[in-house]
Amino acid sequence: MTKGNTLEGNISLAHGAGGVAMAELIDHVFVGAFKNPILDRRDDSAVLRVGGAQIAFTTDSFVIDPIFFPGGDIGRLAVCGTVNDLATSGAKPLFLSAAFVIEEGFAISELLRIVRSMSSTALEAGVTIVTGDTKVVPRGAADKVFITTTGIGEIRAGYVPSGANARPGDAVILSGTVADHGIAVMSRREGLMFESEIISDAVPLCGLVDTLLDECPGVKTLRDPTRGGLASTLNEIAAQSNVCIEIDESKVPVAPGTRAACEILGIDPLYVANEGKLVIIVSSDHEDCAIRALHSHPLGQGAVKIGSVQGSPSGRVNMTTPFGSRRILSMVYGEQMPRIC
Amino acid sequence: MTKGNTLEGNISLAHGAGGVAMAELIDHVFVGAFKNPILDRRDDSAVLRVGGAQIAFTTDSFVIDPIFFPGGDIGRLAVCGTVNDLATSGAKPLFLSAAFVIEEGFAISELLRIVRSMSSTALEAGVTIVTGDTKVVPRGAADKVFITTTGIGEIRAGYVPSGANARPGDAVILSGTVADHGIAVMSRREGLMFESEIISDAVPLCGLVDTLLDECPGVKTLRDPTRGGLASTLNEIAAQSNVCIEIDESKVPVAPGTRAACEILGIDPLYVANEGKLVIIVSSDHEDCAIRALHSHPLGQGAVKIGSVQGSPSGRVNMTTPFGSRRILSMVYGEQMPRIC
Repeated sequence: MTKGNTLEGNISLAHGAGGVAMAELIDHVFVGAFKNPILDRRDDSAVLRVGGAQIAFTTDSFVIDPIFFPGGDIGRLAVCGTVNDLATSGAKPLFLSAAFVIEEGFAISELLRIVRSMSSTALEAGVTIVTGDTKVVPRGAADKVFITTTGIGEIRAGYVPSGANARPGDAVILSGTVADHGIAVMSRREGLMFESEIISDAVPLCGLVDTLLDECPGVKTLRDPTRGGLASTLNEIAAQSNVCIEIDESKVPVAPGTRAACEILGIDPLYVANEGKLVIIVSSDHEDCAIRALHSHPLGQGAVKIGSVQGSPSGRVNMTTPFGSRRILSMVYGEQMPRIC
Repeated sequence: MTKGNTLEGNISLAHGAGGVAMAELIDHVFVGAFKNPILDRRDDSAVLRVGGAQIAFTTDSFVIDPIFFPGGDIGRLAVCGTVNDLATSGAKPLFLSAAFVIEEGFAISELLRIVRSMSSTALEAGVTIVTGDTKVVPRGAADKVFITTTGIGEIRAGYVPSGANARPGDAVILSGTVADHGIAVMSRREGLMFESEIISDAVPLCGLVDTLLDECPGVKTLRDPTRGGLASTLNEIAAQSNVCIEIDESKVPVAPGTRAACEILGIDPLYVANEGKLVIIVSSDHEDCAIRALHSHPLGQGAVKIGSVQGSPSGRVNMTTPFGSRRILSMVYGEQMPRIC
C-alpha cells in the first residue's frame, strides 16, 4: 500500500494496530511534527537527563474492551503496560501518573474496582501513583473508561538496552508463551468458551528484568511484545538495528488452550498481544547466562531461544515453519483485534 | 448533597467539573486507593526526587469539544495545560509525553493540524515532546480525539509554591481577565455570535512565572484557575491552607465582550475556566514587587490585587459585591460547562 493511502483520508483501526499503518502514521504525523533526537530513537521509553538524574519516561493510553477480562482488568493493564515499558528500557520503575476519561453513567463501583486493581498492581510493581486527572464526557462520547498512565523510572547506571543494538550472531530469546493476553480478551469479548479458561498474562515484568540484568548485564535489546505481537516486535528490532532476524516457529511456546483458540478464531498467535513477556537479544556468549537467569525467576520459567540475528536481508524477519519451509514473517498491516489494550 | 449521593450510583458530568462532586470522587476513590504522601499534597504537580534531581510531574487529559475554537485547539490546550501545571509548581517545564485516543474515521488532516499546533506551542513553551502513544477506537467509542499530556519539569533550587502556604495578611493577586477560555469555547459550541469574537486565553505561562519568581522570589502560592474557574481555585487554596480568602468582585477583571456573553448565557465568569491566567498569593510586603514583576511581562499587563487572606472562617471564600454586600463564593457543585478542557 502506498504512503498516500495511509496519510490522506481518515483514521482507520489499522492506524492503532501496531503494524505498518501505525508506523507510517507515527513517522509522518507525529515524528515529523515533533522532530527531536529523543523521539527519533523510537524505543519504548524516552531516556532523559534531568538535573543529575538519567530517567526513562513513557506513556500509554488503555482503551481495552471489555474492561474486565480473565486475568486482569483495564487498571491492572494500565499499570503493567507502563511499568513494562520502563523496565524494558533498563529503568527501575518509580512513579506513575494516571489520567481517566470516564463516560457519564459509568458505575462508580466499577471505577472503584479498577482503581483498587491499579493500586494492588502498583504495589506488586513497586511503583507509586503520585498524580492524576479525571475527565467526564457525556454519555456516548467515550466507551466506559479510558486510562492513560505515564511512568518515570531511573536508568541503571549508564545502561540502556535498545532495539538498535542487535548484531549478527546474537541470540533471540523469548521469556514464555505468546498470545495469552489477546486471546483471553478476544474470548471474553466474543463470548467464546473453551475447555479451560484462557488467562491474560498481564504482569509487571520489572522483577524479571532485574533478575536478568543482575545476572547477565550484557543484554542488548529488551522488548515486551504487546500490540502487534511477537512478529511486530521482531520486525521493529530488525528495522531499528538494520539486521535480519531468523526464528524457528516450532520453538515459540504457545499454550495448548491458546493455540486451540487461535485455530478456532483463525488468528496467528505470533501477531497477538502479550502483556507479560519479554523478547531478549544477547550476544551468543551471553545466551546461556540469560536463559539461566530467566529460568531462576517465576515469570521466566518458559524462557527459550527462538532464533538468531543475521546480517541480511536488513530489516527482515524470516521464519522456519514446523514443516521445514521458510517464510517472511511480515509486519501486520491492519487490525485483526481492535481494543486489546 | 451527601457523600452517599456522590459515591454510589453512576458517574455524572459533575464528577468532572472541578467542583465539590469531583473533589469527593478524588478523595474517596483515587486518594483512598492510591494513598501516599505525594498524592495527598493535592497541588497541581507531584514533586519527586529521582536520583539527584527534584522534579515536578503532572498529567491531564483533554476532551474539549469543539476541538478547534477561537484562540486555539485541543493540541495547543494539551500543551498549555500541562506546561502551566508544571510552571505553577515552580518548575521549569522540560519534557512532555502525548497520548492520543482517536475515533475511527477522524480526518488525518485534522490530526495533522492538531499535532502541528502542539509542536508550535511546545516551541513557544520551550518544552520537547519526547514520547507518545496512539490508540484508535471504533467509530462511536470516542468523540473525535482525546489527548493526554504528561510533563516533567525541574524544580527551582529548593523552591515549591503550594496551595497550603497562604497565611492571614497575604495579598491575593490575579494576572488578568477571567472567563475568556470557557466563553470562547461555549460560544463556538453553541454557535453564538458576538460583536467582537471572544478569544481563548490558552497560552504557556512559564515565561510569566519565570519573570515573577526572578523578580519576587517570595511567592507562596501559584495556581492557574482552569476547570471550575477562579472561584474553585480560591476555594481549593482556602481549604488547603485552612484560611479564609476575601475578594472584592469589582477588582476581578472581565473583558467587556466576555462579560456580555456571560450575561446572555447566564453564567458567572468567576466559575468559568481560564487557560492563561495566574492566581498568586504573596505576603503583603511582597505585593508591590509581585505586581511590578507581572506588569513587566506581556501576559501580566492586567495583573491586579483582588483580595487578601484572613484567618477565619477557615476554608471559606468571601466576596464583596459591587453593591457593597458580602456573600460566600462557594465551590461549584455540578457542571455548568462540560468538555471545556
